[in-house]
Order: sequence, then C-alpha cells, then structure tokens
Amino acid sequence: MPPTESTATLSPHIREKRRRRRVEILHAALRAFGEKGYHATTLDHIAEQLGVRKTALYHYFPDKESILYACHHESLAEVRRHLKEAQEQHTTASDRLRHVIREHVRVMTDTLQGSPLAFEVPALSPEHQRKVVAARDRYERALRSIIAEGVRDGELRSVDPKVAVFVILGAINWIARWYRPEGSFDARELGTEFADYLVGGLTCRQPQ
Amino acid sequence: MPPTESTATLSPHIREKRRRRRVEILHAALRAFGEKGYHATTLDHIAEQLGVRKTALYHYFPDKESILYACHHESLAEVRRHLKEAQEQHTTASDRLRHVIREHVRVMTDTLQGSPLAFEVPALSPEHQRKVVAARDRYERALRSIIAEGVRDGELRSVDPKVAVFVILGAINWIARWYRPEGSFDARELGTEFADYLVGGLTCRQPQ
Repeated sequence: MPPTESTATLSPHIREKRRRRRVEILHAALRAFGEKGYHATTLDHIAEQLGVRKTALYHYFPDKESILYACHHESLAEVRRHLKEAQEQHTTASDRLRHVIREHVRVMTDTLQGSPLAFEVPALSPEHQRKVVAARDRYERALRSIIAEGVRDGELRSVDPKVAVFVILGAINWIARWYRPEGSFDARELGTEFADYLVGGLTCRQPQ
Repeated sequence: MPPTESTATLSPHIREKRRRRRVEILHAALRAFGEKGYHATTLDHIAEQLGVRKTALYHYFPDKESILYACHHESLAEVRRHLKEAQEQHTTASDRLRHVIREHVRVMTDTLQGSPLAFEVPALSPEHQRKVVAARDRYERALRSIIAEGVRDGELRSVDPKVAVFVILGAINWIARWYRPEGSFDARELGTEFADYLVGGLTCRQPQ
C-alpha cells in the first residue's frame, strides 16, 4: 500500500485539485457508510461510488479507518468553526446557541448527509478515538459555558448546563437515525425548527 | 439446548418465582450489554453476573438474541403503559407529554440502567426486528398525535409533530450514551428536567 504522498511540493493548482478530490472521496465514503453501515463498507464500495478503482484511493488515504477519521476530523472542525462564529457574531447566550444548533444540524444533514458518524467512534483506532473524544469534549464544554453564562445573566432558565447540552446533542446526533438526504425535510428549515425548539425550551419561564 | 419450558401448568407460587428470576436475568443482561456492548457479551458473562452457570439461563431463554428481544419487548411495553396512563390521567397535550417524557426517561435510567438498547435493533433476528420497529412506530405515531392535537388546540406552538417527536426521542435515547447508574445524576430529577425542557420548547411562544 503506497503511503499518502506529501502535498508540500505540489503547485497550488494541483493542491486545490487534490483537496477537492479528497472531499469527493469523503462524501462518497459517507454515502457508502450511510447505506451499508461502516463495518460492511469496503474501499471497493467507496471507489465504486466515485467510478474509480480502489488503488486510486490509496493516493489519499491508506485505509478505511483513516477515511472514517478524516470524516470525524472535518465535521468536528466544521462545528467548531460555527461555534467560533457564534461567539464572534453574537453576544447573548440564546443567539449564540441558536447559531450553533442551526449550523450543527446543517453539518448533520448537508456535510454528513445524515451519516451516523457519532455512532462509529468505537471503530476508530485508539489514537484516533482519543483525538475525536477530546475534540468532542472541548465542544461540549464550550456549549456548557454558553448555557452557564446565559443562566448567570438570567437570560436562560435555571438549568443544569450539562443536562441541557446532552439534550441538544442527543436530538442533533439522532438526526442520523431518521434523516434521508432524498427525503421530504428541508435541511435549512430543520435547523431553524431545532433551534426554535431547543433554545425556546431554555428561555421559556413557564414551561407549562 | 433445551427449549424454554411452558409455565402454564406451574403453581402461582412457582410462576411468580420464575417471573422474578426472568426479570433478574434481563437486568443482569442489561448490565452486561451496558458494560461490554451487546456483541461482546456472552451468555457466560450474563450467568456470571447472577452467580449461576450458563445452563441455568436456558430454562428461561434459548439464546442471547432472545434475551435482547425480551429487553426490547418489556421496555417498549413499559413506555406504552406510561403513554396510556398519560392519556387517561391528563387532558392537555403538555400534561400528557410531560408525563410520557418523565416516565420514558425513567425507563432509560432505571429499567434499562442506561443500556443502549435503542442502538441494538440491527442485532435482532428479522422477525424480532420487525416487531420492535412496529411497536416503536406505534409509539412514535401516538406521540405525534398528542403534539398535533396540542398544535390544533393552540396549546402548543405551530411545529411539525414529526420533527418534535424526533427531537424528544433523540434526546431520550441519547441518555444511554452518557448516563451511568452509579453517576451523580438523580434519575427522578433528570426526568423532570427533560420534561421541563422538551415541553417548554413546545409551549413557549417567543423562543428568543
């Protein structure tokens, strides 16, 4: 199996082409994982989705596990980017949460195409698992801080930020269990519905 | 492997003893599934939890899959019982939802001991999968009806009942990913927090 070649010496044009190809491979892999499940998917299935031979994938990824890790890595980077945006663009806890929830839902529906990535952490190598769990923990802690601040400011109800974040992430991760890209739900509206529901439940004073 | 013997000819005392033993086996199995995951659990692990030999389990269950099915069957029966109670004891959508959510959380924390049963449906035989999915669908439809009625009556915000039920069940099923029976969360309080959050998000008019 040839090693993934370094891109440092390549021209910007070639680098951009490789970057796009890499994204295409990740998308094809997510489709295959979504259809067959991670364990039943082979590199041949992923290559098939792209109309290439398996050996063409080795220029980008040494094996299936490294593709799964790249999917985790990129989607976690994306949700963290949205978290940073939320913190920069908004000042209140509810506006920040609304932004993060809406964009995290979009990562689930658009970037991940409803693929159940959050359920496949145990399939990663111990080293990759450690990195993914650490990144996920950082994200969870950041969300808890937003909620804790909102509670302190009196903008949100007095809730346990830990429980509230588990409710939010449970609802979002569960999307992989029912969302189908070809289905009738509009991905953009879904994000807004989730944000209305999950922010509303924290700002509302009289839940009954 | 001896077949599970019929209980029809047994005395009430023996029947009750067998019923209790059956429940103990299911609890031991849930603990083992929770600790090791369903696939890595063997009948020996379950017997070990009970301090008996594997052959003792065969009087109750022919194999591991039938134990998993019994866990699904009993917990679904329990949530359906709570749904019926909610419909009989309450008249408004928000009171019914509050009851169902609180009790469903309790099934996750107490009955299932945080065991990730909802994630193990693919491990069931096709016949058992069909039954579990049908029972789950009936439950989901009943929850949607409660929400649809609440929206019609103007008690709840105008939401898509399908999306709202996915949010609720996602948040509840995700409990298996973080709840530990020996942890610091009080199971009873957790049910109330979930109900406050998930009913509040549906009744609140101005989510921002």
